[in-house]
Amino acid sequence: MNLLLLEDADFISADRARLEGRRLKHLHEVHRAEEGDSLRVGQVGGQMGQGRLLRLEADCAELEVSFDQPPPGKLPITLLLALPRPKMLRRVLQTVAAMGVPRLVLLNSYRVEKSFWQTPFLEAASIREQLILGLEQARDTVLPEVTIEKRFKPFVEDRLPQLAQDTLGLVGHPGNYPACPRAVERPITLAIGPEGGWIPYEVEKLREAGLEPVQLGERILRVETAVTALLARLF
Amino acid sequence: MNLLLLEDADFISADRARLEGRRLKHLHEVHRAEEGDSLRVGQVGGQMGQGRLLRLEADCAELEVSFDQPPPGKLPITLLLALPRPKMLRRVLQTVAAMGVPRLVLLNSYRVEKSFWQTPFLEAASIREQLILGLEQARDTVLPEVTIEKRFKPFVEDRLPQLAQDTLGLVGHPGNYPACPRAVERPITLAIGPEGGWIPYEVEKLREAGLEPVQLGERILRVETAVTALLARLF
Repeated sequence: MNLLLLEDADFISADRARLEGRRLKHLHEVHRAEEGDSLRVGQVGGQMGQGRLLRLEADCAELEVSFDQPPPGKLPITLLLALPRPKMLRRVLQTVAAMGVPRLVLLNSYRVEKSFWQTPFLEAASIREQLILGLEQARDTVLPEVTIEKRFKPFVEDRLPQLAQDTLGLVGHPGNYPACPRAVERPITLAIGPEGGWIPYEVEKLREAGLEPVQLGERILRVETAVTALLARLF
Repeated sequence: MNLLLLEDADFISADRARLEGRRLKHLHEVHRAEEGDSLRVGQVGGQMGQGRLLRLEADCAELEVSFDQPPPGKLPITLLLALPRPKMLRRVLQTVAAMGVPRLVLLNSYRVEKSFWQTPFLEAASIREQLILGLEQARDTVLPEVTIEKRFKPFVEDRLPQLAQDTLGLVGHPGNYPACPRAVERPITLAIGPEGGWIPYEVEKLREAGLEPVQLGERILRVETAVTALLARLF
């Protein structure tokens, strides 16, 4: 937690916040904070600044806070991700938030196991929890927008062409394709497949929607690693 | 497991191997393999090729194997990593192996908690286990060389200058430094700090050994994410 993110409900006045639960525990156990300490704070969806610990007890902390800094900019990207397995999903959500992706679409694919759609980690509160962890890690306040598309074909045929319009559309896909470009200076729409990759029909449909396959070499990366590697190379 | 990695002890003749344990379980439960199936196989430290499942039972599998392909090339890098916390260490070892890092030095730093050095995950067998998982993921056969340096100063003063000689020496470090270079065409020595970063004394010592600080932007990344992002950008 490199940034203490405050929710509206934490504020007891414009410059005072009260903490309980996970963040308080973290202050005690990881930061080993003491009264009087200064901490970086942020308002979810708002600015960043400084907090001073006025009171720190076992079950509650009170901070004086002030905000004077904008959060870091986001990457100009929309990321489409074939729904990863539940455990990976949680980590990917943190990574996506930490890396500064503003829009994430979780998409079905032939190789996404049906059971993955049943996971409680897809509930809005659970998604938000992971995104917050990513923002706290990277020092950002703005939650990415996550949408869920359980049907590949209608999304890719009807909505993706418009989403990808005026962007560089790319599909990360191992194979005999051009190397992923570097340091792109325009908005990007990037699709990353499931373990095992997109099937040829899906690559073709993504192509029709304006996304061209690019590759990162012959090594097969886990989804989380592929997301990070592609973003680091593209921007 | 995108590659079934075979150890010397698995071979019952030059072109036959027998499997038990984790890999057999994976064939049953994840691959849902059947007799007659073909699989990509590799020999630890050797070539890659094809295997055919001659026999697949609950407690044992037998494969006919042939090898005709070299493993993918490694990155020309020596990676120095401040020892991460145990849980992160395991994932980082997988990532390092998957990304093609040939040499990893796990190093002490002021901000490495002393307890991290006590973890059983630092035992040779445990390190090897995680590296194998990374190789299986990425389809590589060659284990990275991992060395452990529990004392920062003697390593950085006495051995690092020679290690870093004739390479581009870099320290990944947030701050007012030049941006990390892209697509470097020469060997690299890269040092990545602990959570919380190197302390100024350490940055100075790394500099004296020939490593210059570079940054990836204002976002603070987890160690595993920073490793992937820096490698993807450098090569």
